[in-house]
Amino acid sequence: MIVAVIGLGLMGGSAAIDLKKRRFAERIIGVDKDIINARTAEHIGFVDEVCTLDQAIERANIILLSIPVSAAMAILPKILNTINDNQYVADMCSTKYDLLELVKDHPMRKNFVATHPMAGTEFSGPWAAQSCLFDGKATIFCDTEKSDTRAVEILKEMYETLHMRVIYMDGKSHDEHAAYVSHISHISSFALALTVLDKEKDDKKIFDLASGGFSSTVRLAKSSAEMWSPIFSHNKKNVLTVLDTYIEKLKLFREAISNEDVEQIHKLIFEANRIKSVLN
Amino acid sequence: MIVAVIGLGLMGGSAAIDLKKRRFAERIIGVDKDIINARTAEHIGFVDEVCTLDQAIERANIILLSIPVSAAMAILPKILNTINDNQYVADMCSTKYDLLELVKDHPMRKNFVATHPMAGTEFSGPWAAQSCLFDGKATIFCDTEKSDTRAVEILKEMYETLHMRVIYMDGKSHDEHAAYVSHISHISSFALALTVLDKEKDDKKIFDLASGGFSSTVRLAKSSAEMWSPIFSHNKKNVLTVLDTYIEKLKLFREAISNEDVEQIHKLIFEANRIKSVLN
Repeated sequence: MIVAVIGLGLMGGSAAIDLKKRRFAERIIGVDKDIINARTAEHIGFVDEVCTLDQAIERANIILLSIPVSAAMAILPKILNTINDNQYVADMCSTKYDLLELVKDHPMRKNFVATHPMAGTEFSGPWAAQSCLFDGKATIFCDTEKSDTRAVEILKEMYETLHMRVIYMDGKSHDEHAAYVSHISHISSFALALTVLDKEKDDKKIFDLASGGFSSTVRLAKSSAEMWSPIFSHNKKNVLTVLDTYIEKLKLFREAISNEDVEQIHKLIFEANRIKSVLN
Repeated sequence: MIVAVIGLGLMGGSAAIDLKKRRFAERIIGVDKDIINARTAEHIGFVDEVCTLDQAIERANIILLSIPVSAAMAILPKILNTINDNQYVADMCSTKYDLLELVKDHPMRKNFVATHPMAGTEFSGPWAAQSCLFDGKATIFCDTEKSDTRAVEILKEMYETLHMRVIYMDGKSHDEHAAYVSHISHISSFALALTVLDKEKDDKKIFDLASGGFSSTVRLAKSSAEMWSPIFSHNKKNVLTVLDTYIEKLKLFREAISNEDVEQIHKLIFEANRIKSVLN
């Protein structure tokens, strides 16, 4: 099996490493419009060769899009125009609805499977790629009734090789869920970083005091703008809904603190503590 | 040296373990108004015995208050009324200004050192106590010009035994800094937990999808209400200032996303990424 990985960063690179090592792919061919990323991927060795998108489409059994959602929107139709019946395409994007809408009437829609492996780190680029990144995590397959059984099967086999469990969901629900368990966490961290960086302008030593709590809450603020800016745009409606709820919750804290209502602060924190029961 | 630890939870317990192990204290005596905590501390073995507050004050060379700030406000004056010239008291509370104001004119003020070790975890109680919790972190000493040199020296030696570096600051600055690098992170996490828990009411399986990013951002939301409710009240002014800035930053994201202003979203994230340069 030849797997073409389009986008040789954290996600594509990590998939490439384990798909080769665990013998799902005999050969990994890589495509990246950034020549430095491409050469780095070759140098690290997680692709057997780099080539152009056209060359990849010509030769691959599976084409895996591990690029920002805006880039996937731009090239998925072109790929579907070109592949034959025995070639399959999957994306790894963090938003699904717009991409699925874009190709829903394409004659080769059945050869496409929309997937979202729920794994990652705050780092990006080929040097961030790592073995076992996906192990034990969930991957979401969306609107699979629109894909050929064979396409779904082979992609399921691919993600099982990455030791992931598959969850099925429609694209609309996916985007809503992703807004709650992933996108809002990122906005929360980005805004926290901006808040404290503002303060740092007058006070150079503030970060001397940062303890483990701050570091973990702000960790996601290291995530890349290239990846996250399109996600927030493509999931606008859901992200705004969650963001409004989040701001409301912060205002509840604001009001309770402002009123020195210790009982109400206590109650809010105690409610928040219930997160323990849902996170192992 | 006999050290009395008042409050046998995460902070006091962790200090007790290493102060004994590293031979700063020959004997640790423990006080906790919660009889289960006291018995547990004895059972774990990080105190040599438990006793009443009066017995502890009678016998200890150093009295360490590792209790919520509201509880410290209630007992510090009583302790200062009772100790002799060769006994020293320090608190480990996360807010300093109110406590320092409370005792500023006390005749034994000079035997008190206000300290805040910037370390912790989201867990609490005696079972959360651990060796090496403080290693490599900073501890803040406030308004030390009001304390005897001997008092500051002995407490410095104590924290150096815990492998902490001492930073000196006035109580007012401390509370402002703590709002930025600690208190706002907690509110941000508590509000995130409340947001997602709200959603979970209609959708039981949402947490199946939570990935590492969500877990790290929401980690602090496991922190105890008993500890954090008084911190937010006692640091009201600073916390409200930071919280208002934080809500403003979130609104900048809201506006950019609402306008589908990809460039502005990109710019905000790119600015937030500068957090990389200030965290290790």
